Order: sequence, then C-alpha cells, then structure tokens
Amino acid sequence: MKKQLRVPGPTEVPEEVLRESSKQMIGHRSAEYVEMFKKISEDIKQVFMTENDVLIFPGAGTGGMEAAIVNLFSPGDKVLVLTTGVFGDRFAEIAVSFGLKVEKLTFDPGQCVNPDKVRERMERNREEIKAVIVTHNETSTGVLNDIKEIKSALGDFPGLFVVDAVSSLGAAELKTDEWGIDVVVTGSQKALMTPPGLALISVSEKAWRACESSKLPKYYWSFVRAREYLKKGQNPYTPAVQQIYALKEAVRMILEEGLDNVFLRHRKLSKAFRHGIRGMGLELFARDEIASPTVTAVKIPENLNFNNFKKRLKTDFNIEIAGGQKELKNKIFRFGHMGYIDEKDILACISAIEICLKNLGLSIKIGSGIIAAEEILIKGE
Amino acid sequence: MKKQLRVPGPTEVPEEVLRESSKQMIGHRSAEYVEMFKKISEDIKQVFMTENDVLIFPGAGTGGMEAAIVNLFSPGDKVLVLTTGVFGDRFAEIAVSFGLKVEKLTFDPGQCVNPDKVRERMERNREEIKAVIVTHNETSTGVLNDIKEIKSALGDFPGLFVVDAVSSLGAAELKTDEWGIDVVVTGSQKALMTPPGLALISVSEKAWRACESSKLPKYYWSFVRAREYLKKGQNPYTPAVQQIYALKEAVRMILEEGLDNVFLRHRKLSKAFRHGIRGMGLELFARDEIASPTVTAVKIPENLNFNNFKKRLKTDFNIEIAGGQKELKNKIFRFGHMGYIDEKDILACISAIEICLKNLGLSIKIGSGIIAAEEILIKGE
Repeated sequence: MKKQLRVPGPTEVPEEVLRESSKQMIGHRSAEYVEMFKKISEDIKQVFMTENDVLIFPGAGTGGMEAAIVNLFSPGDKVLVLTTGVFGDRFAEIAVSFGLKVEKLTFDPGQCVNPDKVRERMERNREEIKAVIVTHNETSTGVLNDIKEIKSALGDFPGLFVVDAVSSLGAAELKTDEWGIDVVVTGSQKALMTPPGLALISVSEKAWRACESSKLPKYYWSFVRAREYLKKGQNPYTPAVQQIYALKEAVRMILEEGLDNVFLRHRKLSKAFRHGIRGMGLELFARDEIASPTVTAVKIPENLNFNNFKKRLKTDFNIEIAGGQKELKNKIFRFGHMGYIDEKDILACISAIEICLKNLGLSIKIGSGIIAAEEILIKGE
Repeated sequence: MKKQLRVPGPTEVPEEVLRESSKQMIGHRSAEYVEMFKKISEDIKQVFMTENDVLIFPGAGTGGMEAAIVNLFSPGDKVLVLTTGVFGDRFAEIAVSFGLKVEKLTFDPGQCVNPDKVRERMERNREEIKAVIVTHNETSTGVLNDIKEIKSALGDFPGLFVVDAVSSLGAAELKTDEWGIDVVVTGSQKALMTPPGLALISVSEKAWRACESSKLPKYYWSFVRAREYLKKGQNPYTPAVQQIYALKEAVRMILEEGLDNVFLRHRKLSKAFRHGIRGMGLELFARDEIASPTVTAVKIPENLNFNNFKKRLKTDFNIEIAGGQKELKNKIFRFGHMGYIDEKDILACISAIEICLKNLGLSIKIGSGIIAAEEILIKGE
C-alpha cells in the first residue's frame, strides 16, 4: 500500500530529491563541493527572506536551537521566552541548561502568543532582557504565531529577536530582514522537503555582535568558525553531503514553484483539511485565525480511542499520524501537511479518516468531511 | 570518467548502501523506525567490539568528540591528551574550549604515541588526571597508535580511557571491552562506508558514572537522554533517517564479510599501496610498523609540485586525493584507502600515480611501483 507520512516531520521527500541525495560522495574540500555549497548557501537565503549569512550544520533542529543559545549568550544572561507549547518550552529548557536566566511568558495550549501581553511585559524593566525568543509555528498544538505583530509589540527593544522556525520555514511567510529578526533556526526535515540531518541558522549583524561577547563555551556549534569556512564555500567539519545534495534540489524546486505560491498552497491545503475535519463533526484544537499552515491538531472525540484510530489509519490506509505530546497526549491528534504535499493527499486523507471513524463505530455522516474539503478546493482561497 | 575518491573521508559508499539511504522517510516514532534503530544499535556493537551501549547522534565526528567532553567532565577537570597530529590536537582544543585543564603529551608528526613516555608520565602525580584521551588512527599523518599497548602503559590508572576512532573503527581492530576502553568516538563517513552525518559513541559503565557527576552544561549531546530514548529504540530528537538506513546496510555488509576479514583486507591493501609507492622511489611519511591501514601519507619529492600532481590525478584519472594539513601542507600528500575499497582500486591508483609522475617529468621507472604492489597481492599477507 502506498504510504502517506502525515506526521509533522520528518516529512515526505520528493523522488527527485531522494535521487539527488543518493549520489556518490565527493570530498568536502573539493572544488565541486565548494561550488555546490556556495550555491545552496546563497539560494537558501531566498527561503529565509534574508541577506544574512545562513549557517548549515550537520545536526537536528534542536542542535540548531542549542547553537543559537551557546553562540549568542553568556551564563546569567536573561532571555524572555514566549511559549505556546512543547517547542517554546524546549527553547526555554535549553537556555536554562546553559545557565541563562529564563523568564517565560506562557500561553495556553492551542492559543497563540498574545502581542498585547508582550507589549505589556516590555513596558517594565526590560533593560536586563538580552533577547526575546519565540516559536513561529508551534508543532505541538498547530498554532502559527504572528511574528510581525510580536516584533512590533517589542517596540524599540534593543535586544535580540530569535525565532524558531523549524516547522514553518519554507511553508509560512517569515520576512527575516523586513521584520527585523536576528536569528532564525530551522531544520531540513519539515517544509524544506529534505531528509533530516541539517540545522540551518540565519544570523543578523546585531547577532554577530552578540556572538563576539558571548562567554558560553562552544566548539562544534561555533558560528564564528562556520562563517570563516562559509567564506570559502566550506564547512569546519565534514558536512552531511547527502542532505546538502538533497537541499540543493529541494530549494531549487521551492524557488521554481515560487515562495508565494508555496505559502499559498500550504494555506489552501490547511484550510481544506480543517474544513474537512470540521465537516465530519470533529473539533479543531486551534481556531482558524491562528491555525498553522503546516500541522493541524484535532481534538479526540470522547467516544474514540486514539490508538485504535491511529492503528486503523495505518493498517487500512498506510497513513501515519502523530498523537499529542506531554499534557496533550490522548487529547489531540496531529496531521502534518507541509513540504511535499498536494490536494490529492489532503482529499485522500480526509476520506480515509471518514472511513476509519465510521468503521470504528462513530456516528458521522459519510461524505460530510470530504464534501466540506472539496468546497474549499473548488472555491480556491 | 569513473571517480576514485581517495581522500581520507568522506569515503565512497557502496551502491547498495546509497540505494538503501534513498528510501522514503518514515516517522521516527513509528514501530518501523524503532525496529530498525534497535537492530542497528545492537549490530553496531559488534563493530565496536563492545557490550556497551552505542549512542548515535546526528552530527559530524567532531560533534561526537565534543559530546564526550561535555558529558564526562566538569570545568577544571584535568585530562591528558596523547597527540600525534591534527586530530589529537583537536580533541585537546575541544577540551580547552570547555574549560578543562589539558596536559598534552605530543609526539612528532609521523611518529606514534610512545607507550614508554606514557608509562613514565603515569608514574608521577597522575592523581588529578581524570582521563587519558588518544587518537587511534591519526588521519593527518597516517599513523595507527597501539591502543592495547597504551592501555597497558596506563597500568592501574583509575580514570577514564577515551579513544577517537573516527578514521579507524571498522577498519582496524579496536577491542573496546577487552582492552578496557571507556569511550570510543567515531563517525559514519570513514571505514563504516556510510555517508557523513552520524557521530557514534560507546560508553562504558565507568563512563556512565562519570556522566553522573559531570557539571558541564549540555542538552543536545546529553548521553543520559540519548540512553533513555535508546531503551525504547528511539532518539531524543529527529534522527538522520537516511544515514540510519545507510548504516544498517553498511554494517550488514561488514558483518557479512566478517570483521577479521575486513581488518585483513585493510592491512593487505595498505601494504600493497605502500610497497607500490616505495617501489616507484617515493618516501613514506610513517614507518611500516606504525603505518595506518586506512590512510597513507607520502612525502612530496623535492622536484614535484603537489598542486600540479593533485590536479593531474584529478583531470587525467578523476582520482581525488588530499594534501597535508597545517605544518605538513606541501610536505606530504595523503591517500585514503578505507571502507569500500578493493585490490583493483589500489592497483589502478598506483598505476595512475606512476603515469602522472612520469608525465610531470619525474625520473621514475615505469612499472616499478605497480610491480611492487602486485608482489604483495600475489604473496598475500
């Protein structure tokens, strides 16, 4: 049975990208590698919507988050973390691990960062805050934070603005330079349609100045060393050659489709999926206005056993989905719809969900979900 | 023209391994992934020759070295680094970066660690030394250190014994448990015939106790967290799925050939290569007794311009080699011969070198190298 990988990462990778990634190795100090790495390091800037250098490390997205902390700060520095779920909490946890003073502004699961609360917080003793850190797309709840609004709520805050865009970059608009974001962290394995194994980080001029005064110990993740090597189109240590091959092809495909078209596609598919879910009488975890274009969280109906549902989708349709994390375990399930995904995937998925729910004895009206989804795709956005 | 990648890493990857690595992604929390990761985590122990857990992180080998430092030690801890070149120095540099007191016992480039010097050093105030760190195979000079001898020189030293086996594991015998090595670090991209992107680390019981008292900050590289997840066949963060696919197939091939046969093949090919080089009148950098089975360093003859030679090998034969690093730049060149390599590769390479040297005007006797190499392969080892 054909597979649909509807977990929120790693995501499915286009055939063309898999094929590129399986080319034979080349030396990472060769002219051939240098040419390729220079090209991808330039092209990826378009996806980051920045003129800043984008550093690429072999590692997971969490490694990129750690890299941001150890390069920008010193022990005892205070950061304000705006958190809307597991991944906001993770950034805070990493900062605590490295001896930073962390103040968390926490928003309820399923809610977004409220810019008014941020504005309020920035009105009192903000002097000691070195940086504000926020998750663009909270993968654990399916919420997209409004980075532009949050930035504007920071007013003339002179510190750094750091954004975790692991599950959004390449799927949702993030105007790094125009919105004044100093550091953006992402991973290869989500909307970038590339296998996991790369952490990518853009660094502004202001952030480079922070790096200069950072006193946290670092070696592997050193931004300064990565920039030195980037100047010659190289990496300090052996790069993940396969994923560099893959990323080059994936970014080519993204730019060929056009960033705006990619964003539009994600919004449209997310909307169709949500309408489909709602059409069959299920409840969405996040409201429409703040819904993520890359992952949708659905409340588990009272009369449904999540594990049975998950198993059924897997055995009957070979569709793989994710459950809730931590306190949301057995309360929501999550569908990833980012990167290499089209209308047919969404339609088949909604129909499969209808069938599984019906087979599990839920009283849903057959066709109610798929009709609602189709309506969105007929109308367009 | 067919390529020969004779740099000392990344090395060529077998077709079967490339093909496995290009399979579609799967969820890293799925039963399918868990089954695969449990299997590779077990099988890799045979290559490490250990019963200890082997942790696998997305990252370069240098990341694995950093991981060892931040998990085992606290700021101010003293370590003794036995260094024979660039990679011994790198381990020392990482330790210094994280606030360790580092004592280096340095041996001349091209020489191995002298166990007598180690024994001598361990006879005086060794109490404050928390660990002895050594490179198994010094990639920068083509020297293999005798880990068993070095361990025996440590006598009843109660601290940790840490070995960097990045360019040796899977090519040269390293009896982790029998020889009493607490931590072995390697990378996927050398003798393991897998694309770059994985750092692999084995951790002994004694090393786990050291982890418990370590006070260096850590998050991404946390051994404790990696072990927790390993128990359920998982990773804390998104793993490099492609390289896990690849490693599984590569290790299957290594175990099918048989570890002893793999070691023998490397010794034999190294010997044939060295005889070939010597046969054409060139001088080897390391003496036979301590010669690496994975990388050979050759002194550049006075009347040869290295860059011309390197370029000629590349354009005329599509063979890629490496030069010397740091103070050995323009003094030696290096040939990698590890992992996916056989007799035909060595023979073609020796002939190609003969032809290039002749074409560059060196007065070598055509056939002198290849005959010497053939003699070794006729006799066997």
